[in-house]
Amino acid sequence: MLLRLRRTVVVGLPQAIRVKPTPSRLCIPAYSTNDSFKPQHPSLTFSDEKSRTRGWRVMGTLLGLGAVLAYHDHRCRAAQESPRIYTKEDVRAHNSPETGVWVTLGSEVFDVTKFVELHPGGPSKLILAAGGPLEPFWALYAVHNQPHVRELLAEYKIGELNPEDDASPTLEASDPYADDPVRHPALKINSQHPFNAEPPPELLTESYITPNPLFFTRNHLPVPNLDPETYRLHVVGAPGGQSLSLSLDDLSTFPKHEVTVTLQCAGNRRSEMSEVKGVKGLEWRTGAISTARWAGARLCDVLARAGHRLGETEAHVCFEGLDSDPTGTAYGASIPLARAMDPEAEVLLAYEMNGQPLPRDHGFPVRVVVPGVVGARHVKWLGRVSVESEESHSHWQRRDYKGFSPSVDWDTVDFDLAPSIQELPIQSAVTEPCEGATVAAGEVTIKGYAWSGGGRAVIRVDVSIDGGRTWLEAELEGEEQRPRKAWAWRLWQLKAQVPAELRELNIICKAVDDSYNVQPDTVAPIWNLRGVLSNAWHRVHVHVVP
Amino acid sequence: MLLRLRRTVVVGLPQAIRVKPTPSRLCIPAYSTNDSFKPQHPSLTFSDEKSRTRGWRVMGTLLGLGAVLAYHDHRCRAAQESPRIYTKEDVRAHNSPETGVWVTLGSEVFDVTKFVELHPGGPSKLILAAGGPLEPFWALYAVHNQPHVRELLAEYKIGELNPEDDASPTLEASDPYADDPVRHPALKINSQHPFNAEPPPELLTESYITPNPLFFTRNHLPVPNLDPETYRLHVVGAPGGQSLSLSLDDLSTFPKHEVTVTLQCAGNRRSEMSEVKGVKGLEWRTGAISTARWAGARLCDVLARAGHRLGETEAHVCFEGLDSDPTGTAYGASIPLARAMDPEAEVLLAYEMNGQPLPRDHGFPVRVVVPGVVGARHVKWLGRVSVESEESHSHWQRRDYKGFSPSVDWDTVDFDLAPSIQELPIQSAVTEPCEGATVAAGEVTIKGYAWSGGGRAVIRVDVSIDGGRTWLEAELEGEEQRPRKAWAWRLWQLKAQVPAELRELNIICKAVDDSYNVQPDTVAPIWNLRGVLSNAWHRVHVHVVP
Repeated sequence: MLLRLRRTVVVGLPQAIRVKPTPSRLCIPAYSTNDSFKPQHPSLTFSDEKSRTRGWRVMGTLLGLGAVLAYHDHRCRAAQESPRIYTKEDVRAHNSPETGVWVTLGSEVFDVTKFVELHPGGPSKLILAAGGPLEPFWALYAVHNQPHVRELLAEYKIGELNPEDDASPTLEASDPYADDPVRHPALKINSQHPFNAEPPPELLTESYITPNPLFFTRNHLPVPNLDPETYRLHVVGAPGGQSLSLSLDDLSTFPKHEVTVTLQCAGNRRSEMSEVKGVKGLEWRTGAISTARWAGARLCDVLARAGHRLGETEAHVCFEGLDSDPTGTAYGASIPLARAMDPEAEVLLAYEMNGQPLPRDHGFPVRVVVPGVVGARHVKWLGRVSVESEESHSHWQRRDYKGFSPSVDWDTVDFDLAPSIQELPIQSAVTEPCEGATVAAGEVTIKGYAWSGGGRAVIRVDVSIDGGRTWLEAELEGEEQRPRKAWAWRLWQLKAQVPAELRELNIICKAVDDSYNVQPDTVAPIWNLRGVLSNAWHRVHVHVVP
Repeated sequence: MLLRLRRTVVVGLPQAIRVKPTPSRLCIPAYSTNDSFKPQHPSLTFSDEKSRTRGWRVMGTLLGLGAVLAYHDHRCRAAQESPRIYTKEDVRAHNSPETGVWVTLGSEVFDVTKFVELHPGGPSKLILAAGGPLEPFWALYAVHNQPHVRELLAEYKIGELNPEDDASPTLEASDPYADDPVRHPALKINSQHPFNAEPPPELLTESYITPNPLFFTRNHLPVPNLDPETYRLHVVGAPGGQSLSLSLDDLSTFPKHEVTVTLQCAGNRRSEMSEVKGVKGLEWRTGAISTARWAGARLCDVLARAGHRLGETEAHVCFEGLDSDPTGTAYGASIPLARAMDPEAEVLLAYEMNGQPLPRDHGFPVRVVVPGVVGARHVKWLGRVSVESEESHSHWQRRDYKGFSPSVDWDTVDFDLAPSIQELPIQSAVTEPCEGATVAAGEVTIKGYAWSGGGRAVIRVDVSIDGGRTWLEAELEGEEQRPRKAWAWRLWQLKAQVPAELRELNIICKAVDDSYNVQPDTVAPIWNLRGVLSNAWHRVHVHVVP
């Protein structure tokens, strides 16, 4: 009975959060520009009176009967136990239902093991915080910042953190990554140095706009620590034009242009490709994709100021980052001049991400944003822009981020024979339920995302729960897409009726874009040695209990 | 031994014809504008001295040893037999290797059964003419128009056509299709009324530019017979602009723009989809696609003359044909104004096809050509152009030419829920060898085409001969594609080594475009009730003899 009630409540949460999401509801904190995420005491408030009222209404839905039952179940236990002192190590050791689920808020320690299944947002979301502080999560999901939630949590208190257990780790000066920013603990780390991490799938589709601290991070080198006062962007002038050296203030004198854009790494879902045969690359799962509202100067305006015009012959705009390896080689990439000069392509030199200065991990103070194009061309920590007759000579433009036939291996590959990846193909993935999860028969909610490159809109997502024998159409959510400028993803969900006699679901999703491009059925025929462009049907196997 | 020799010669032919093809080599006759094809005595010549020299060199390659052997084999037989009189019906009854292969040239009848296997262009091409006149084929492939070929053919003469057997069929005035033009006999007819036909695959990829008489024909209604002197194109003016009534001479005062464009019917390869489950539509095989060099006025120039500008809100350019059904309803379609007004999109009001006035079957005197977009929007016999806030209300825009999920049937379909097809997805097909053919072990040449919509270039064609277990890269031929303007297909071929112990080949091709879109593996998951957008991997099964 409790489980059934919880399921009803869970459905309420995603709806309340996902339908027409607004930044005010996500309540993204104004991080310092030096850190992507800094844990802080939850002092967040709804940003206006209207949101506050709505917030309470959401809380009512969320915490209604489930919370009352939980409260009744646990009110006596906490009163009987006296606080004890724990180390952070003690807390970290309790990070799963098997070990017990402990969390901290400020200096208080809570054993929420028995609350996990009652969590209105779903057990999996609470587990993300298991063994550590709640603050980074509550900062993102402001519904928690309510007296009812505090009161509920208090019932689970088991002690206090050892106040002497708070020494920061000392920085090693010789480590080039020592100055990298602090990251959000929910990120799944694929590589620490350079830092590469993705949000867990169940958080990824919790909101149309990905909160900055959860936005997937793909760094190739240590994160530079740039001073916004002395920062200059060098734009090489056209013959007869003039070169520019632009401060942040100079950039802000160009018309400010805002656009919501989904970025995807070429290696998203590489882990599925490496299951076919080994590939070189980070083992991204489905989370190397995120969406933000970007603001900045249009690249076409800046190039025009430097005297550039679209000519008869093919040319390329080359970007150089201010991140560099020990030899001084900077990250670099390029895009065709035709795209850069097209106002309708909305290529930005972005200095804001979701209303905030760019976090350091995402290119502070300025990055390129190329709507509809692979993440690798959105050069971060942008230092230099030039127009050349050829593509960037960077390793990442010419010797990486290209697709090949499954028959090409490292002995036979000729990188000059394949074009650099620019626009990406149609993509989709299931984010809930997770692979291997157990769901109850009856109505099962399946959620995911879909996106296509080149501004092509997602027109349909087909979902199967029987391994592809039959298909159902998912409901597309999130913002409507503009024709030819569908730069941001569609989230989707499907409520499937699962008969009690079924023991498993073989869930598949596949999307269609407005050029009627579709995803390929299987991974092996698109396998390539770098494991990029992994966009076969996404498959998730789950168990069913009656 | 003979077989081996022939195989070598066959390889020479496609190379000579396909590499950098020029109209002069194809020698397309100047058809009257009233007929798509009119059989005529072969009086074709190479158009200049350089071509003539090259032509002879090609002939040398083609007819070298194979022709000498054939000549030796048959020279006596013809001399011994005396001419007899045959009816056209007699000839038509000899249209296969089993019945014997007879052909005519002028009034002469030839039994070329024993020459079929010696034909330098391959047996399958000669079989296309079996049971009928050679002229329509020789008109397309000018290498035949040589004394050597005439001399060779003379050896196979068996008689003369009955001179009284030449009455034209009388027209039935009540038949709305009675005035349709005469078509090329090689076309494979999917529907006579309205006329819908495709070239046979082995001719389709014989030349980068499809000869006008072989260009696939997709008519929805009877072909109107329009007088070029009185023809007027009505262009509705913008508010504040002026409406135009343009004669052909008026149209020719706009700058003449030429572009090579591949047209594909949305139903190309529908026959494979209907093998999965029945669909409504014509049973197109792989030939509902062709390529021509089009010339005309740019639509953007004509619209600008009528005062149209690109506005802030989405608008559409609606086209009406001068073909109409018995109720007077004309064929109609529309494209977004943004595409129409973009000079880079090169949308044409075309009045020439491969240097000739449009054939009647292809829209004489004016049709729309929308590069990168489904054939259904290339409205023929164009009568009216207007700019509207909505898409065309035509049946073919709103109740046809849309894609749906495999789960949608005629009871549940809601045409308003799917966008009209505009850009088409990546497509490819094998044209040689044909399904069910027998090939000799050793080197087997596999040929085909690949094309993608939206100006996306074909960057790779993967071919498998083992049902998809391993893949080889085909060689891309035909003209280089321009970035973002890859409006025309790539032909491709692969010379595969087939071990003598193999008994069959399961040939598959799949193409990749420069947005790295790929074709889906199988047909069933893209099945839709109208059988459009059939672009799964193309599969051909052939037998191997040692």
